[in-house]
Amino acid sequence: MDIKCLLAERALTMKASAIREILKLVNRPGMVSLAGGIPAPASFPLDVIPTLLEQALSKYGSYALQYDLTEGFLPLRESLSPYLSKKGINVGADRICIATGSQGALDALGKVLLDPDDLVAVENPTYLGAMQAFNPYGPRYVGVDTDDEGIIPAALEEVLKNNAIKFVYLVPTFQNPTGRTLSLERRPLIAEILRRYDVLAIEDDPYSELRYCGDALPSLWSFAPERVVYLGTFSKIFAPGLRLGFYVAPPDLQTYLLRAKQGVDLHSSTLSQALAAEYLSGGYLDRQLPKIIELYRPRQEAMLGALADHFPRDFSWSKPDGGMFIWVDGPEGLNTEELYKKAIDENVAFVPGRFFYFRDDQGQNTMRLNFTMSSEAVIREAVERLAGVIRTFTS
Amino acid sequence: MDIKCLLAERALTMKASAIREILKLVNRPGMVSLAGGIPAPASFPLDVIPTLLEQALSKYGSYALQYDLTEGFLPLRESLSPYLSKKGINVGADRICIATGSQGALDALGKVLLDPDDLVAVENPTYLGAMQAFNPYGPRYVGVDTDDEGIIPAALEEVLKNNAIKFVYLVPTFQNPTGRTLSLERRPLIAEILRRYDVLAIEDDPYSELRYCGDALPSLWSFAPERVVYLGTFSKIFAPGLRLGFYVAPPDLQTYLLRAKQGVDLHSSTLSQALAAEYLSGGYLDRQLPKIIELYRPRQEAMLGALADHFPRDFSWSKPDGGMFIWVDGPEGLNTEELYKKAIDENVAFVPGRFFYFRDDQGQNTMRLNFTMSSEAVIREAVERLAGVIRTFTS
Repeated sequence: MDIKCLLAERALTMKASAIREILKLVNRPGMVSLAGGIPAPASFPLDVIPTLLEQALSKYGSYALQYDLTEGFLPLRESLSPYLSKKGINVGADRICIATGSQGALDALGKVLLDPDDLVAVENPTYLGAMQAFNPYGPRYVGVDTDDEGIIPAALEEVLKNNAIKFVYLVPTFQNPTGRTLSLERRPLIAEILRRYDVLAIEDDPYSELRYCGDALPSLWSFAPERVVYLGTFSKIFAPGLRLGFYVAPPDLQTYLLRAKQGVDLHSSTLSQALAAEYLSGGYLDRQLPKIIELYRPRQEAMLGALADHFPRDFSWSKPDGGMFIWVDGPEGLNTEELYKKAIDENVAFVPGRFFYFRDDQGQNTMRLNFTMSSEAVIREAVERLAGVIRTFTS
Repeated sequence: MDIKCLLAERALTMKASAIREILKLVNRPGMVSLAGGIPAPASFPLDVIPTLLEQALSKYGSYALQYDLTEGFLPLRESLSPYLSKKGINVGADRICIATGSQGALDALGKVLLDPDDLVAVENPTYLGAMQAFNPYGPRYVGVDTDDEGIIPAALEEVLKNNAIKFVYLVPTFQNPTGRTLSLERRPLIAEILRRYDVLAIEDDPYSELRYCGDALPSLWSFAPERVVYLGTFSKIFAPGLRLGFYVAPPDLQTYLLRAKQGVDLHSSTLSQALAAEYLSGGYLDRQLPKIIELYRPRQEAMLGALADHFPRDFSWSKPDGGMFIWVDGPEGLNTEELYKKAIDENVAFVPGRFFYFRDDQGQNTMRLNFTMSSEAVIREAVERLAGVIRTFTS
């Protein structure tokens, strides 16, 4: 039968991810890839999983396998409460909800908040996955410029003054794709602007635990708890395959987000949640996190060092205190998508930056480099090789 | 801030589940409940979970914890291929996709197929959770009458003749809420009608493995593979807390369902999938299923026996060959919602049948009784107690 003619209008907004298409080439043998966006398998606490399971089954028995509340597994929500208070988020378990990855929370937020043609303000560039969650609900995007200190307060104010924005979506700490962090000075300013224009913000925070230097910053939520939805995830501090995120939202919004989730998956995997509860409450995260940081820190140093050693003078890049990415700005006129094709021929891959902009004509001269998925030696070789490709390409 | 004024129009269709509200009373101490709709914890293969985990970790290592394909974990899809062929569904792993519960597949189907005011044909009564998945996408429903042999072919034809139906949603085997099964004779007739009117159908099949007597029937899919989406789940044969469903859809539709899922949760829990792969491929399901059936069969017999012994003559009920539910029709004029309040006072609970109809004025004299969650003794006592309440209520 002809399925195409049955599709809802919104299905036509669901494009195959261009980035996925381009990354298909990355798995070729011999390729050194800086294109990834995922945690290193070595960062997973594989050795403690059987212990966590044993504890979960002995504590919760068949409850760990049964249907559960849409809000999430109570022992997990209870153990998230002290965890979140370290980020200045002081709420009880009743205010913490579990999602199927933070992606699940993004979908619910889109579903509950977005009518077609509603405006969403996003950092420019921004996280692709968020747009993929929102797009089926038909919003349009307004970009807010960012610099080395994150989103620019004056730029946000200008956008909010001139547009009826439904919500602002941002990744304030070690952003994907840029690695940049909203500075401590700017956080209260952004909160104040949100308050002045009576606007809701989504603070997506997958990376803040991956800090290699400097001091932890309080969440944006802590500056405007009444109008910020905080999203966290276990994907970077435990294991992404568990598909567990969590959020704290204004209570009225939480009610609707839960109703949305009930229709989408009833609740997230109870077994995953029971394992995560043990991981947090048994002190395993506290022991694992330093290991993850010590795995990534030298990789980031290797990348920053190799960039300084090999990249041409007219390139610049972010120097984040943490996260998984470095953002490279090439000279005006450089087309990194064309560069990508040459790089692939030389068996080195990255992600052309333009994919992180919602408009096609931006970020042509930028690229995202990931440093979590390769060893220091591979990173050094890849950056050097990429620098060679750039030199050939631009000469 | 005032969240209500930010809500999308579709959020207003997301009602708190009336059934959940009514069931809140069910957890009172001393209550004997026939209101549940979930598997017995004793049906879970709790004892083999550590073995499954050990095997999964030794076979797949960190892959079991990593991000994975939206389509699903390949070893699980491969082991589902021979499993599905027993239902007359002969497809390779590439045609089998994993969902976060069959609920996740229902959400994706709604998202991809339903424009506001599209018409969906459903059995009357039907499974509530499907409507909860579809409702945010704004469809309207057309009911198709059913009898003891399931959906009535002439009634379906009448509906398809007079309405532009986007798809037909049905639970052909041991339906929730009625327990009824679409007879072998009717299956090819329904397929033929679907073909004649060029209509898509969703065959939701959570219960067919729970067969206590009679012969297994081929799936509706097997009679019209080009226009039926088959949905299965691990919730009733393994554990609902894993949140794992699976589906086989026409390839063009599969493409869009996967795009939808990518935005919703990227993929389902890899660890859950790895456990399910071992459960299937290691022969554990083949050993567990007879145990589940031997747990439920006497419970169903106890309920049917107690109904025959105690219920008034003017009541009738379904006598299913399997599943989890028995559907009771009371005399014309009986209001089972009022009856429910009296029953609760007497510490016995059931679900008033009207909740399974999308129109408020139907099924007032019906009720759904669950037999999986209680022992035979409790079931007998509950049915007897309920019969007493009925006698007082109707006299």
